[in-house]
Amino acid sequence: MEKYVYMFDEGNISMKDILGNKGANLSEMTNLKLNVPYGFIISSHLCKKYNSKKELTKTELNQIISSIKKIENKTNKQFGNKDNPLLLSVRSGSSVSMPGMMDTILNIGMNDDILSKMDDKRFGYDLYRRLIMMYSDVVKGYDKNKFEEIITKEKIRKNIKYDIDLDIDSLKNITFEFKKLYKMLSKSYFPQDPYEQLIESVKAVFNSWNNERAIFYRKMNNIDDSIGTAVNIQEMVYGNLNNDSLSGVIFSRNPINGSNELFGEYLINAQGEDIVSGARTPNKISLLKKKMPMIYDELYYYSKVLEKHYKDIQDIEFTVENKKLYILQTRNAKRTIDASIKVAVDLVEEKLITKKEAILRVNPNEMEHLLHNEFDKEELKSVKVISTGLGASSGCASGRIYFDVKDAKKVSLLNEKCILVKKETTTEDIEGMKICEGLITQVGGITSHAAVVARSMGKPCVCSIENIKIDYNNKQLITGDNIKFNEGDYISIDGTNGIIYDRKIKTTNKKESEYLKKFMSYVDSSKKLKIYANSETITDTKNAIIYGCEGIGLVRTEHMFFDEKRIFNFRKMILSSNKEEINKALNDLLPYQKNDFKEIFKLMNNKSVTIRLLDPPLHEFLPKDREEITKLALNLKININKLNDRIKSLKEVNPMMGHRGIRLSISYEDIVRMQIKAILESAIELTEEGFSVKPNIMLPLVSDINEFIYIKNIIKEEANLIFEKYNKKIDYKIGTMIETVRAALLSSEIAKEADFYSFGTNDLTQFTYGISRDDSEFLKDYYEKGIFNNDPFKSLDIKGVGKLIKQAVKDARKVNKNIEIGICGEQGGDFNTICFCNENDFDYVSCSPYRILGARLSAAISEIQE
Amino acid sequence: MEKYVYMFDEGNISMKDILGNKGANLSEMTNLKLNVPYGFIISSHLCKKYNSKKELTKTELNQIISSIKKIENKTNKQFGNKDNPLLLSVRSGSSVSMPGMMDTILNIGMNDDILSKMDDKRFGYDLYRRLIMMYSDVVKGYDKNKFEEIITKEKIRKNIKYDIDLDIDSLKNITFEFKKLYKMLSKSYFPQDPYEQLIESVKAVFNSWNNERAIFYRKMNNIDDSIGTAVNIQEMVYGNLNNDSLSGVIFSRNPINGSNELFGEYLINAQGEDIVSGARTPNKISLLKKKMPMIYDELYYYSKVLEKHYKDIQDIEFTVENKKLYILQTRNAKRTIDASIKVAVDLVEEKLITKKEAILRVNPNEMEHLLHNEFDKEELKSVKVISTGLGASSGCASGRIYFDVKDAKKVSLLNEKCILVKKETTTEDIEGMKICEGLITQVGGITSHAAVVARSMGKPCVCSIENIKIDYNNKQLITGDNIKFNEGDYISIDGTNGIIYDRKIKTTNKKESEYLKKFMSYVDSSKKLKIYANSETITDTKNAIIYGCEGIGLVRTEHMFFDEKRIFNFRKMILSSNKEEINKALNDLLPYQKNDFKEIFKLMNNKSVTIRLLDPPLHEFLPKDREEITKLALNLKININKLNDRIKSLKEVNPMMGHRGIRLSISYEDIVRMQIKAILESAIELTEEGFSVKPNIMLPLVSDINEFIYIKNIIKEEANLIFEKYNKKIDYKIGTMIETVRAALLSSEIAKEADFYSFGTNDLTQFTYGISRDDSEFLKDYYEKGIFNNDPFKSLDIKGVGKLIKQAVKDARKVNKNIEIGICGEQGGDFNTICFCNENDFDYVSCSPYRILGARLSAAISEIQE
Repeated sequence: MEKYVYMFDEGNISMKDILGNKGANLSEMTNLKLNVPYGFIISSHLCKKYNSKKELTKTELNQIISSIKKIENKTNKQFGNKDNPLLLSVRSGSSVSMPGMMDTILNIGMNDDILSKMDDKRFGYDLYRRLIMMYSDVVKGYDKNKFEEIITKEKIRKNIKYDIDLDIDSLKNITFEFKKLYKMLSKSYFPQDPYEQLIESVKAVFNSWNNERAIFYRKMNNIDDSIGTAVNIQEMVYGNLNNDSLSGVIFSRNPINGSNELFGEYLINAQGEDIVSGARTPNKISLLKKKMPMIYDELYYYSKVLEKHYKDIQDIEFTVENKKLYILQTRNAKRTIDASIKVAVDLVEEKLITKKEAILRVNPNEMEHLLHNEFDKEELKSVKVISTGLGASSGCASGRIYFDVKDAKKVSLLNEKCILVKKETTTEDIEGMKICEGLITQVGGITSHAAVVARSMGKPCVCSIENIKIDYNNKQLITGDNIKFNEGDYISIDGTNGIIYDRKIKTTNKKESEYLKKFMSYVDSSKKLKIYANSETITDTKNAIIYGCEGIGLVRTEHMFFDEKRIFNFRKMILSSNKEEINKALNDLLPYQKNDFKEIFKLMNNKSVTIRLLDPPLHEFLPKDREEITKLALNLKININKLNDRIKSLKEVNPMMGHRGIRLSISYEDIVRMQIKAILESAIELTEEGFSVKPNIMLPLVSDINEFIYIKNIIKEEANLIFEKYNKKIDYKIGTMIETVRAALLSSEIAKEADFYSFGTNDLTQFTYGISRDDSEFLKDYYEKGIFNNDPFKSLDIKGVGKLIKQAVKDARKVNKNIEIGICGEQGGDFNTICFCNENDFDYVSCSPYRILGARLSAAISEIQE
Repeated sequence: MEKYVYMFDEGNISMKDILGNKGANLSEMTNLKLNVPYGFIISSHLCKKYNSKKELTKTELNQIISSIKKIENKTNKQFGNKDNPLLLSVRSGSSVSMPGMMDTILNIGMNDDILSKMDDKRFGYDLYRRLIMMYSDVVKGYDKNKFEEIITKEKIRKNIKYDIDLDIDSLKNITFEFKKLYKMLSKSYFPQDPYEQLIESVKAVFNSWNNERAIFYRKMNNIDDSIGTAVNIQEMVYGNLNNDSLSGVIFSRNPINGSNELFGEYLINAQGEDIVSGARTPNKISLLKKKMPMIYDELYYYSKVLEKHYKDIQDIEFTVENKKLYILQTRNAKRTIDASIKVAVDLVEEKLITKKEAILRVNPNEMEHLLHNEFDKEELKSVKVISTGLGASSGCASGRIYFDVKDAKKVSLLNEKCILVKKETTTEDIEGMKICEGLITQVGGITSHAAVVARSMGKPCVCSIENIKIDYNNKQLITGDNIKFNEGDYISIDGTNGIIYDRKIKTTNKKESEYLKKFMSYVDSSKKLKIYANSETITDTKNAIIYGCEGIGLVRTEHMFFDEKRIFNFRKMILSSNKEEINKALNDLLPYQKNDFKEIFKLMNNKSVTIRLLDPPLHEFLPKDREEITKLALNLKININKLNDRIKSLKEVNPMMGHRGIRLSISYEDIVRMQIKAILESAIELTEEGFSVKPNIMLPLVSDINEFIYIKNIIKEEANLIFEKYNKKIDYKIGTMIETVRAALLSSEIAKEADFYSFGTNDLTQFTYGISRDDSEFLKDYYEKGIFNNDPFKSLDIKGVGKLIKQAVKDARKVNKNIEIGICGEQGGDFNTICFCNENDFDYVSCSPYRILGARLSAAISEIQE
């Protein structure tokens, strides 16, 4: 029979897969001889087994029960013995950290009998009411708020603010009311059998693996649904025993900015849950240094032991029971990306880890939070500070305030930026946090739910803003000065410094820190893949250079036509009925386009620039509403009916699969000729000025080799005319996007003619799935029903689209050794996709400027892991 | 050096590839000792060479000139010798027949000198003016009409009707005017050097290979552009010498109905071109039997010799010069599909060919013309005959009349059926003939251009309708009774019997002939592939059975919802906001759907029926215009704004790639459950009545195995409930369409779960190319520019889509030996596609009922050719 249960001293860190992180770390700490309350871990294999059958066998139960005996032996307490009661905690813990899963039940084993024998009745009631509430919530799924209400009523009755001020009378009342409520909801008494309490709690933890929020979190973080959770069962120690007891959380270094100092908070006379829930604002750990210096020193010592052992910054839960320190949990700390970078570099310099290890410590998906959020210094001078709080997650953001996740989701669909305003957050708010620009919470410290999740998402967050009021009913935020902000009003928040401003403020890019520079130097010396940028504006191109791009992989020329002056000529061209008019309009556009390219070429001196010929269907350039159409008709001096007819005739049923890409080039050869002129003339002129220009001309949406050859011939013809005109030749490449399935399938034909490939994975994914991204709203049903786990547009579908790409690359390399192969499109900045590209012999990935840092890191990680 | 020129006695039929059909047949006839004017053939290899360089080398020219010497030796005439002139004809002739290529020049070698020495000056001028006109047209590309005008003027001046009545004076005038016109157009005199005339003519034939009409014809008939044409150069014999001379065309059997009788026509004192052009209405061949019985008998004898030799019905051109018969050309005759079938069966019964040979003689693409066009007998009683003419191509059709190809094309885009009305047709009308339902021509016989092309296209055609007038200016057809039909008015034509009716008449299916039955029995005993039908209506299903389907491969259930009563419930379902309302609406639909399936199952007793679950996006079912939306809102008692919002919310940017197929099933499980109920309940109930029902349930647009499994589980769940309810189980299969690229790529996963595959090649082609068929108008530029030769939606793209399918089939067979594999969609009835399926181990193809006969034949041909 499989061994499902491991005592803490039977496990170690290498057994994460079955013990979960929490359990493996508890074992590890036990082995390190830290003062850890004893216990055991039920392996995640039992979770899987239980969740498919929904029952525990007798032998499985026996393994659990005999392990309890071992705790009893170690602690000299007995589970269910009213004279010497052992109480237990039950916590989930999978091999990937999932903060906020509702999965902890404390004080298991408490019952009427034990209470009756306890000397400290206040303490007894406190344990009992906590157990009933957690059990009702986690095991039974009853609404926690109904229990909270009972406490609130009692506090109003007694006119007190915090739970801690509840006296024995109140706690007795509360326990009584809780039991009554439980009886009403469950139609039976609160279970008195400690074993029943325990087993039901274990089952509840198993079940919680498949609750909606957990599924959503895993989806969001690409976590395999099948791993399951382990369950940790541990002797209770009591931070709520008296005023010499406390519960707390510390980080071995500052998780916000990475500085090397103990960081954290604690609550006197409290259980751990009181801190995480954010209900009372805890004390900073620096206060503990004054109040209990011995405990503080011991804590500091442990934190360094653990940091050395794990070679990483630790997030440690502890309890002091009657002046005795217990370590309840340690884990690698979640931190902001800024802290991540600084700690990685510091640990290298402290010689705790190698540069390669440092690289593996930073999450590439968070790199984009590093640079693009700082308020404009000028604008800051004229705005007003509404309030201040704890800077709980760094970064700056502006947005309209919303008090409800649903409302925030609605406006975010309209591309409105919003700031979530909550008293405190719970796991139910995760979806809202995901879509907002940042959030503020009235209560809760830097280890509150809001703070932890915001940091993991890279969203600015300000917590614990005591001088504001939040009125959910009227959807108002009211400042200390009684200024009211209504739903939809703008505010700005600085999560680094904990400041809230009264209006929208422009954000600018943050400067690269010294730490980042050092870190990126580790990265660049470890990676092989080149990182290019997708960019067609001066600003983006400049940013791309700052972020370390090695070339431009995609210039979308059509974006250049939307400028007011140009769009007119472009529309004129589209609406022309004869070749002469078309050429006239194109000639008018040429100088603009030429200038665009010149500016990019100059910035990218010595680096290659890949320019995609006009791609979108022509109707995208025409006005849509009546007023604009009328205006255009007047401007162009054409009959409005004729214009409407033309607009109508250009309409397409499925524009994604219509007259676009190289198909446009074939129908409108003159556009190609104009664009080639713009590219090559500007390149030649700059070469004469001493620049080194490396233009690549990219043909989009090819599905047949004949298309490619036809346009290639036109380009060569035009190029030769230009070279004659200037009496000067320059090198240029002609390549193609591989974004239709057919192009990928027939790669061995196309590669013979193409100098380079850029896989256009957006379209390739759409065509492979037959899913239009614009119409993929229905996929929400897929996630809900577990049919899809990942968004195939976010990260490359390696199984399907990847299969196609892999073969296409092989086929291409076989017939053309020198072909340069890359990828552009949104997936070009995604970690898994970059790993795929690196493994499959790509030359480069190209992504948006803001993702370049992450892409560089991803490339390095992939190379190291390979 | 390559031999480019072959004398007739050097060639034979096996050399078609380089000599072309015409040339190879001339050689073959020469070898058979038929009386063929002597000559030689320039091979198609020289055409290819010439067309890439546009010049002939000296050695190439020498080969031609030395061959002329050989004709001179044989005929005792000399090219360019005014005392004993040899004149030559130059004709194109590729290895595939391309009727109507402008490629013939007669009387080459004629010039002023020769004319001056001729005794019969009328004959001399007749030769000369014909040469000048053909040369101007074919070699120089001048407008033929300008020359025709000169003749017309002369005829008006002399008040005569036919060319034949032109006297020596007129012909002299005409020749003079022709030379003047030539001089004006070319800025030089008409060339007097016979060799110059010849060489320029040869070049012109080479060039004609790439004229627009030729390219279009090849595209339409899937002919390789690279084969090129040979050129035939032959001694002239003169059907226009005197009234004992004539030119004619015969078929060895009737090409319209296949009966075994000499069929054809001739013109006294005429050259061959006079017949084909349709300018004078020729005499039927039966008249020759009376007028020149000896010549007739000789002709009949030759026709049978050739028929025996070629083992097929022959189309023979001949000339009688001064009572001496010459055979100028023979080829396998174009014929109607009716004739094709009868001749094939007759030749088998005459023991000239085997059954397998007979199968290979019939073009599967024409089979669909066999059955679906006969006028409704009842309606025929109440319509009026406008006129009668020659039944030149069989079949019946109704449509609006158009006089101009352009107009006809416009209305056909709007799905209007049209009948083309022309005085006579030329190759320029081919595109119009392709899109019309049928055509009538005022002049021209059964071998006229209109007749030949109409037969090859399977379009009804009535020719030579002398009692009507066509007024092109006013776009009117005026009958003998002076009734006027305007452009856009309806008429009906019976091309079998040569009758024109005054209005639209319903058509019904023709009965299967005895010949067809016999022929199809040959076919069925030779094929392996099963042929299924796509059908969801009773009529179509009945037809499918008549045409020999072996099962239903695709029932599109959505078509069943468009009925007026059902669409209301269906819309109600779509617009419902809660599960209860949805289920109520679905319950109302269930009896209808159940009844639909019952009727099909009954008809298909013992045969499998594959039912596809709901496929199109829901917005397709909702009304589009305001009035209808208002009506629906009133009917459903919902707010119109809410309705508009819902309609808007269902709109998609690219509906082809949106919320449809199995994606709908996943979002609306209740629809699946209703459809499964309808399928299985009706199947069980019929089984209880003694029927044998074989239902296959097909899930469309799968792109991931999880989708398939999710819905498969729902189906099984529902099936078990139904089996319990009826206390009876029946067999059913669950399979999928493979129509997304990803499904094809991941076939080895999906095949493990699926009982059958049906490749949906319409969508698969769209997704592979990234081309929406609805928006593929731009492909016309591709055909024009030679980028695409074939329409990938008509016939499977074997290189691209085929590659995907081939691998998918292999992968599927590897993991599931019993999987049934087929194809549905339009390509399922296409010959090349069927060959692909047969070669790649498919079990069946499924196509529209009207294509079943052709599909059966295609399957047999493929099997025989393999």
